Amino acid sequence: MSTMSEYDTEAQVTEAQQAALRLANVDEETRNAALNSIADAIRDNEDAILEANAADVDEAEEMLAAGEYTQALVDRLKLDSGKLESIAEMVESVAEQDDPLGETLQARQLDDDLELYKVAVPIGVVGTIFESRPDALVQIAALSLKSGNSVILKGGSEAGESNRILYETIVEATAEAIDAIPEGWAQLIEAHEEVDRLLEMDDKVDLLMPRGSSEFVSYIQDNTQIPVLGHTEGICHVYVDGEADLEMAEEISFDAKVQYPAVCNAVETLLVSEAVAEQFLPGMVERYEDADVTLRGDDRTREVVDVAPATEADWDTEYGDLELSIKVVEDVYDAVEHVNTHGSKHTESIVTEDGDTAETFMTGIDAASVFHNASTRFADGYRYGLGAEVGISTGKIHARGPVGLAGLTTYKYYLEGDGQLVATYAGDDAEPFTHVDFDGEWTPGQLSDR
Amino acid sequence: MSTMSEYDTEAQVTEAQQAALRLANVDEETRNAALNSIADAIRDNEDAILEANAADVDEAEEMLAAGEYTQALVDRLKLDSGKLESIAEMVESVAEQDDPLGETLQARQLDDDLELYKVAVPIGVVGTIFESRPDALVQIAALSLKSGNSVILKGGSEAGESNRILYETIVEATAEAIDAIPEGWAQLIEAHEEVDRLLEMDDKVDLLMPRGSSEFVSYIQDNTQIPVLGHTEGICHVYVDGEADLEMAEEISFDAKVQYPAVCNAVETLLVSEAVAEQFLPGMVERYEDADVTLRGDDRTREVVDVAPATEADWDTEYGDLELSIKVVEDVYDAVEHVNTHGSKHTESIVTEDGDTAETFMTGIDAASVFHNASTRFADGYRYGLGAEVGISTGKIHARGPVGLAGLTTYKYYLEGDGQLVATYAGDDAEPFTHVDFDGEWTPGQLSDR
Repeated sequence: MSTMSEYDTEAQVTEAQQAALRLANVDEETRNAALNSIADAIRDNEDAILEANAADVDEAEEMLAAGEYTQALVDRLKLDSGKLESIAEMVESVAEQDDPLGETLQARQLDDDLELYKVAVPIGVVGTIFESRPDALVQIAALSLKSGNSVILKGGSEAGESNRILYETIVEATAEAIDAIPEGWAQLIEAHEEVDRLLEMDDKVDLLMPRGSSEFVSYIQDNTQIPVLGHTEGICHVYVDGEADLEMAEEISFDAKVQYPAVCNAVETLLVSEAVAEQFLPGMVERYEDADVTLRGDDRTREVVDVAPATEADWDTEYGDLELSIKVVEDVYDAVEHVNTHGSKHTESIVTEDGDTAETFMTGIDAASVFHNASTRFADGYRYGLGAEVGISTGKIHARGPVGLAGLTTYKYYLEGDGQLVATYAGDDAEPFTHVDFDGEWTPGQLSDR
Repeated sequence: MSTMSEYDTEAQVTEAQQAALRLANVDEETRNAALNSIADAIRDNEDAILEANAADVDEAEEMLAAGEYTQALVDRLKLDSGKLESIAEMVESVAEQDDPLGETLQARQLDDDLELYKVAVPIGVVGTIFESRPDALVQIAALSLKSGNSVILKGGSEAGESNRILYETIVEATAEAIDAIPEGWAQLIEAHEEVDRLLEMDDKVDLLMPRGSSEFVSYIQDNTQIPVLGHTEGICHVYVDGEADLEMAEEISFDAKVQYPAVCNAVETLLVSEAVAEQFLPGMVERYEDADVTLRGDDRTREVVDVAPATEADWDTEYGDLELSIKVVEDVYDAVEHVNTHGSKHTESIVTEDGDTAETFMTGIDAASVFHNASTRFADGYRYGLGAEVGISTGKIHARGPVGLAGLTTYKYYLEGDGQLVATYAGDDAEPFTHVDFDGEWTPGQLSDR
């Protein structure tokens, strides 16, 4: 049985790889039409999808009663008519995005009639492994199709029925409505034991986008050599400088924690310059306490306000809730040191009226996003104007911070010549290259008419 | 002893990480001055460097006599006055390159007085593991310093003395001549048993650039979760189409194999359309044989010309020498199929006068570089006008094909605001974002005067 299923997964991924070669050349209009067909099919299949989902939810509720699952898992699993409509609209919004493919990123003449073009192309095969949320399957399939990539989908067994019907809905919509989407572009992997097998396929899967808890994403990152686009944790800071506008600092510190505490760009530790701690902290703490934020402070904080003591572990904790640690620091250098030691390279913000101090903070910290006088909560693909958010990356390779559809592309060099040989440009009588950049799009098989 | 050395490597890499935070903000002039100091120091230390190298070479020659080392290894190891001058000039040419850091890649207004800047910054800590060539140490140190990255250097034991003195020359030149390069930016790791330890440090080392044989690079790739910038093999093809200019095809096919057969962008398999095989192959084969190229052909090739038979293994072999396999294919689709099955996604070339056929080939093949009517040998950072070549990547993530200094950078988002809160842009009365791109450079701590 095990050999059989290994063979299947291998065959599925190979089929996806073959499909990717053709999907790379499907035009924008066809890809968008296919996305709109998927959205329609999700609406048309509502009854069947909700029925399949109800079966998953029933089973999950038994596991909940048995103490195996949490209520949060059951909630994430559950679809209803409204959620399904949001999923269909999400797919349509992906269709409306600018095409991430085909853009000529650079055009350079190397010599007369020898022209190099760097053009955006799909990566190939992207994979996702996700926990109970069935909308992750649809979202990643939509983003992959938009960007011309084949996709391997592996969901949790708790959402087995929901995932299967959503997958079938997607595949049928692209197969029936549109001839031009190559069969095999999306593959569902159902057997739990196939996860490790998938993680080993670094020669066939080009990128993984796991969706789930920090622990889950960490597990994936630690157990595969496939590049992973994702983030494990967000330990973000706001630093209130000695030269801060303290009213602004209070508003930003409040927004960064309270506006949506469960997300990765919420603040976890507030750093306050000793120059303004006495003036700033009492009002700030009152404001937080009115919003039911649980506070912990270091010794110097507790000299000024009456909060529980923070331990060293607090500086490394992502609460993801209405909890916050507070530390009084000497100055901006002390703040930078703390952030570089304890931060997760996600998003960091300074509040100050002094431009030089802002520069010290912003250039001194190694993080994907560093803000001056703005809430950490702005770190988000939609707010950055990137369109559909593919993920947030705390890695530095390939894509960093909020990642749009461009994160699912790579590039290809096209060289148009008329018979040039390297021998002409080598040795003692070497011809020089011209290396002149120009504005132009690659036209297959043709030199430009410049 | 083992515990001790583990501790040391960990401490060295941590020191490099600390230095990287400061090196990221060292200005272009200082980095270039430091590079020029390194070049001068290499010239000044010539006697000592050659003496140390001679000790390595003596030992290697004993190993050669004992049959442990190859002559090629000894040759790669050996430095002389001329080679050392080339190394010094290489360092100076890196100094002359455009600065890869600080460029504002995108400036976008999110709303009034809320401005997002995407700016090129160093990756952090890059590492290299290399075999006997001591110039790899200097090259990677120079590229790292230019791009503001700390560097971990691990050479082979056969070049131990050479590596140590080159490392000391570099570190002393940057420490003494220039105050502003942070101590610890370059670290030499000498113990062989520390390689595996380094490969495990994926939380501290951001990118690896191995230098050595295909097998060596493969070993590194298979044994680390650190992203690797490199290539293992180059199985490149030239496809001579039925609509090719056959004189051009002969010149390109000859150049692609003979001009420099040992390199990764040389052709390994020549694909010929059946429409022109009889006309094209006899003259081509004669030309190759005159240049001492060993040829193997498939059955259809051997119907036309008298060459040794090719086996299936030939299609997957990088000869790296004056050897070539030849296959007659039906048409461009057959050629694309062969290349996507056997190629290494490096560089592929079609010779044809038909633009549509060129398009089929160029868009249908998944490779970093696809050429029309030009020799595969053009796939090279210098020829592409990328400046200093960091490496050639056959991976698709982060960097693909020939990679210049930009491959050693990532980006950072800087957001300048005047107190904006996400609460303003969320919920029922959400303010809209403007999302207007503009031309502008990030000025730390200041909103632009638009």
